[in-house]
Amino acid sequence: MSDRPAITQTSRLARRASGTSAANRMVPEETPVALSYGGTTHAVMMASPADFEDFALGFSLTEGIIGSVEEIESIEVLDVEAGIDIQIRLKDKANKRFEQRRRRLAGPVGCGLCGIESIEEAMRSVCDVHRPVLGLAAEDIVQAVKMLSKMQPLHAETGAVHAAGFYVPGKGVVAAREDVGRHNALDKLAGALDRAGIAGGSGAVVVTSRVSVEMVQKTAAIGAPFIIAVSAPTALAIRTAEQAGMTLVALVRGDDFDIFTHPDRVNTGAAKNVA
Amino acid sequence: MSDRPAITQTSRLARRASGTSAANRMVPEETPVALSYGGTTHAVMMASPADFEDFALGFSLTEGIIGSVEEIESIEVLDVEAGIDIQIRLKDKANKRFEQRRRRLAGPVGCGLCGIESIEEAMRSVCDVHRPVLGLAAEDIVQAVKMLSKMQPLHAETGAVHAAGFYVPGKGVVAAREDVGRHNALDKLAGALDRAGIAGGSGAVVVTSRVSVEMVQKTAAIGAPFIIAVSAPTALAIRTAEQAGMTLVALVRGDDFDIFTHPDRVNTGAAKNVA
Repeated sequence: MSDRPAITQTSRLARRASGTSAANRMVPEETPVALSYGGTTHAVMMASPADFEDFALGFSLTEGIIGSVEEIESIEVLDVEAGIDIQIRLKDKANKRFEQRRRRLAGPVGCGLCGIESIEEAMRSVCDVHRPVLGLAAEDIVQAVKMLSKMQPLHAETGAVHAAGFYVPGKGVVAAREDVGRHNALDKLAGALDRAGIAGGSGAVVVTSRVSVEMVQKTAAIGAPFIIAVSAPTALAIRTAEQAGMTLVALVRGDDFDIFTHPDRVNTGAAKNVA
Repeated sequence: MSDRPAITQTSRLARRASGTSAANRMVPEETPVALSYGGTTHAVMMASPADFEDFALGFSLTEGIIGSVEEIESIEVLDVEAGIDIQIRLKDKANKRFEQRRRRLAGPVGCGLCGIESIEEAMRSVCDVHRPVLGLAAEDIVQAVKMLSKMQPLHAETGAVHAAGFYVPGKGVVAAREDVGRHNALDKLAGALDRAGIAGGSGAVVVTSRVSVEMVQKTAAIGAPFIIAVSAPTALAIRTAEQAGMTLVALVRGDDFDIFTHPDRVNTGAAKNVA
């Protein structure tokens, strides 16, 4: 276990038009977090030191290492001074599958082809989320972002932390997680949803950040047919959402927003449509 | 070689108070870029498809794989449809050193200790930049950010791309690079500086993003005694800059900014100082 704080007070010299003075400010902590499977480290991420079990579970799910929480034997969170080491034990079948993938990825040294294989792994095919029948009104989208902005205690104190939430029509934002890294926030949300038994197909992922392809891949792994973002998407994120059958809404500013893919799921108020 | 565009036009449905209409928008491309050394892939990053040689050189420098461009035998940029594979050949001595590091990092499988080793690698000690004698006035800091904002053609079209620049007092921002990833933008800048023969100790790194510990580590590897950022730093970034002897200035908004470490290098105008 770990009781590290997620934010810290720091002193700084503030230069303003009225003069320069020393003043305090809250800043987010950032901690190296290693995710180890079967005693072998798979990845080290710089993350907010909070919600480690959600992170371990969510990362395992969105990276396709497990199909469900049932495949995890144990999660142990070790505070090792320089950072956090999360030791994950998978059940037999999942462990064998993961070891095979790891060996395949390690590949022959110096083969000269690893670049192509690694690129293909990064561009892994995403889950198809055409199936979930979910429609949102324009008001749902506006509300989802407004509600999430009120569920960001770390950001409220620091102004420097991302959040990912899950919006269900009629229920509002039912879960939210924050992290200095936007991918981590989404992974933590994925873990929180799975632990709470909330089906990914029942709502929309809402993020405070830009939308890169990895955000779309992770949202597809969650099974959500919607990603709603405050900032802009990349071209690859748009193409990937298009293929996955995902509705990508971005640049939500007050009541305004842009729909980049599969707009049929959004009721923008037909009477107002401009030809 | 590759002639991929760095930005793309996309159509989207724009929902505004006045109604909903189809309209075009420019979005940044995002491409998996594999960096391979001696035929073995070391990392795959999602990056803007531009400035690949700067990226390969800068990443090699800031990650400590090489000490100078002299250690690179060749850089080959392969467009492999799904992405870009940059094949880097190191000269003998650098190659041996890198192979040793790679073997050490791969470590024994299932040892249970890899987490700690990987965390320590992530927290690698940073270069000390106490030495470079460089002082900036408040006006330098304000100007550096203003100048960089005018050297962001991709961001001007998309509103969704980070930039890293290098400011030299009396000369202004002498180099700038953009990327969808803030670490990539800084790596590309590092490569551009090295190729242009600009000493890292002669100026300040200026970034449009937040300051994570990795941004401080890379700035220290460049040898710059200053990092100036538009957004906020993390607590770990502040501690690391403090240790490295680096002046960390952040939250630059118009004429206002905050100095988090080593403020002695900044002349804020003593007469204006408030007790």
